[in-house]
Amino acid sequence: MAQKPSIPKGTRDFGQVEMARRNYIFDTIKGVFALYGFQQIETPAMENLSTLMGKYGEEGDKLLFRIQNSGEKAALAPEKGLRYDLTVPFARYVVQHREELSFPFKRFQIQPVWRADRPQKGRYREFYQCDVDVIGSDSLLGELELIQIVEEVYRRLGINVCLHINNRKILAGIAEVIGEPDKIIDITVAIDKLDKIGVDAVNAELAERGLSNEAVQALQPILNLSGTTAEKLTALRTILANSEIGLKGVEEMGEVFRLIESTGVQLNIELDLCLARGLNYYTGAIFEVKALDAQIGSITGGGRYDNLTGIFGLPGVSGVGISFGADRIYDVLAELDLFPKELQSTTQILFATFGARELNYALLWAKALRAKGVAVEVYPEPTKMKKQMGYADAKQIPYVAIVGGDEMAQNKVMLKNMTTGEQNLVTLEDLCRIL
Amino acid sequence: MAQKPSIPKGTRDFGQVEMARRNYIFDTIKGVFALYGFQQIETPAMENLSTLMGKYGEEGDKLLFRIQNSGEKAALAPEKGLRYDLTVPFARYVVQHREELSFPFKRFQIQPVWRADRPQKGRYREFYQCDVDVIGSDSLLGELELIQIVEEVYRRLGINVCLHINNRKILAGIAEVIGEPDKIIDITVAIDKLDKIGVDAVNAELAERGLSNEAVQALQPILNLSGTTAEKLTALRTILANSEIGLKGVEEMGEVFRLIESTGVQLNIELDLCLARGLNYYTGAIFEVKALDAQIGSITGGGRYDNLTGIFGLPGVSGVGISFGADRIYDVLAELDLFPKELQSTTQILFATFGARELNYALLWAKALRAKGVAVEVYPEPTKMKKQMGYADAKQIPYVAIVGGDEMAQNKVMLKNMTTGEQNLVTLEDLCRIL
Repeated sequence: MAQKPSIPKGTRDFGQVEMARRNYIFDTIKGVFALYGFQQIETPAMENLSTLMGKYGEEGDKLLFRIQNSGEKAALAPEKGLRYDLTVPFARYVVQHREELSFPFKRFQIQPVWRADRPQKGRYREFYQCDVDVIGSDSLLGELELIQIVEEVYRRLGINVCLHINNRKILAGIAEVIGEPDKIIDITVAIDKLDKIGVDAVNAELAERGLSNEAVQALQPILNLSGTTAEKLTALRTILANSEIGLKGVEEMGEVFRLIESTGVQLNIELDLCLARGLNYYTGAIFEVKALDAQIGSITGGGRYDNLTGIFGLPGVSGVGISFGADRIYDVLAELDLFPKELQSTTQILFATFGARELNYALLWAKALRAKGVAVEVYPEPTKMKKQMGYADAKQIPYVAIVGGDEMAQNKVMLKNMTTGEQNLVTLEDLCRIL
Repeated sequence: MAQKPSIPKGTRDFGQVEMARRNYIFDTIKGVFALYGFQQIETPAMENLSTLMGKYGEEGDKLLFRIQNSGEKAALAPEKGLRYDLTVPFARYVVQHREELSFPFKRFQIQPVWRADRPQKGRYREFYQCDVDVIGSDSLLGELELIQIVEEVYRRLGINVCLHINNRKILAGIAEVIGEPDKIIDITVAIDKLDKIGVDAVNAELAERGLSNEAVQALQPILNLSGTTAEKLTALRTILANSEIGLKGVEEMGEVFRLIESTGVQLNIELDLCLARGLNYYTGAIFEVKALDAQIGSITGGGRYDNLTGIFGLPGVSGVGISFGADRIYDVLAELDLFPKELQSTTQILFATFGARELNYALLWAKALRAKGVAVEVYPEPTKMKKQMGYADAKQIPYVAIVGGDEMAQNKVMLKNMTTGEQNLVTLEDLCRIL
């Protein structure tokens, strides 16, 4: 077995530094969720294939990892698959446990998901999702709270963002008033590209997708809509005057903006009619958050759904949720050098010793310091000092306490500050004060 | 789809209460690990089958879950499997990343593992392991630190435990001196049952397993060894006088006890010659921790290994580690009612309102409280008060702030203590003080 071992393509090991940074992201997000009363749940990595199949479209079905018991014959079709996202297991959870839950049910969930995608830069076969949802209420307070959570999470992380918001009912209304109510998916897929390919290319694509010339023309004022949010909403009220669903969308959007204003949300928020998002289950507000100082696409997204649990036999339960993309947030924080410096090492002091007696002495100091909550390591052997100091360097431990016979005789240690190189003889009391 | 959805047998959903309790266990353990400078890593859920196969014995190979890409033909043999434990992936990790690591490498890892075991009470197909290891040093300080960690973790959790300790070299020495060096596994398997089946049955089993009558007789003084640790060690030095490896084991054990004493470890520790543990890779100290007030078997276990990474081409790297059994610790804490009460709810106060204006008012109070770190919920609709109070009850939220027109007029809320039923009109400043 001389060959160096490896891991499956598209998967990753996370070392100590990466874990400290990932935990920083998750802990920040969890801290904000908790302020709003969201509580954590976890579901199994494997779900019955019947739970997963047909929920992610044909393409999604192909990307499911299937699981076989070793004992099973290869000929037996697998009955289980790995979690593909957190949304379908959440819907399954709500239906399965509905008698135990109190609604509105506010939950968050941070777990890995698996997709047999072709691995490429920034796309993995195992990655974490971080979802927060409130289900069992159609109050727009849900939308407000998620917006407040986005604001606070990114404020704490120090990332400048813009939240794009749209409403699925407005999109449906637009499709109605331009006379193409069945082409809503084609319309949204095309206008979603406006930023990237420009208005002419979008119009060409709309024609290609079978929209009549009149419909494309009717869409133009909407694509060109500009001004403040209030101006956009006023214009939309006129444009969508003949669409009941469209007006409902405008009304919802107006109420969300009223809540945003009355609670003093400071986040950049843009009413973006070109925001489409996967339209499979969204029925109301849809959101996407983009980092302003990094080119990385959406780092958080979500929306309202009126019938997510319907696929499992519990129709008519409205909810709203968003998902934080931990991997992309990680990349933004790394690119902009926004990770706190002190995440690098958890150990505050290493004891380096010259002999067995000194080692015993160091163990007692270590015990006293740990009792005060200080993270301490004792180098396990009184080996060459250079090696012990090298260990502290590699682990970025800020202080080393050097223990020789002289120090012991004075009931002290020689404390070295690894950043400045400064050395001082100190007592245990001094040390407690410094650390 | 009227059928209620379900999850694969042997797997579990964890609701909010269970998650809060599980996080309490993990956070307690992580807090202690950090005091000793252990840092977290994570490895992928799926490993190459070549990494996993042959590492857990024939039985283990059968219990591996294999993974198939959906795109793959069923006829193709799967190349990946789900993590079966954290030890083999850790060994793989150390070998794969050896150039990036500084040794001794102190890591911990808390992740689920999967086994296609027959599900039964207390045995699951998905469960968390919680491993801590130091690798790259044969210093017995490693053993000491793990013992100190066990002491501190169970002190914090409030569980009375006894740590049983033995040494693989002593067991090898015993097999040598009774003239059956090749029968070490048979001997340990049999004497491991001493507690359960008694000395006569153990002797019968030893004979059945092919031990000579003399060997069984020679073993008796060892089975009957009693007294203090010092007395046991003295007796062992005589018994194992002709076994080099046996004496080495006694010496190691003596040094571990010396360290325990000199650092004032208060844990119950028993030198237990009948402790065998899976002997596959252990080569030195072995540990098992039992809860004294619950009948549940071992809740933590581990030991020293001198060649764990040898299977991946990096021989001669010594390490020592233990694994905390989170599920069993959970059961002990539940049985003995040791979970802290305040884990039940993270929300400290719910705002219940009588109308839309009151709801807006509540949102501003909620914002002010959250800015001070208070976990707040606002019931999303001004629905019947009974329903809003019922929500607080179900979620065990300790305070409800009731907001009606009168309260608003006075710039106050009616604060209800849900435990005592007491109600008081309070200002925002009062509320900050109370929460």
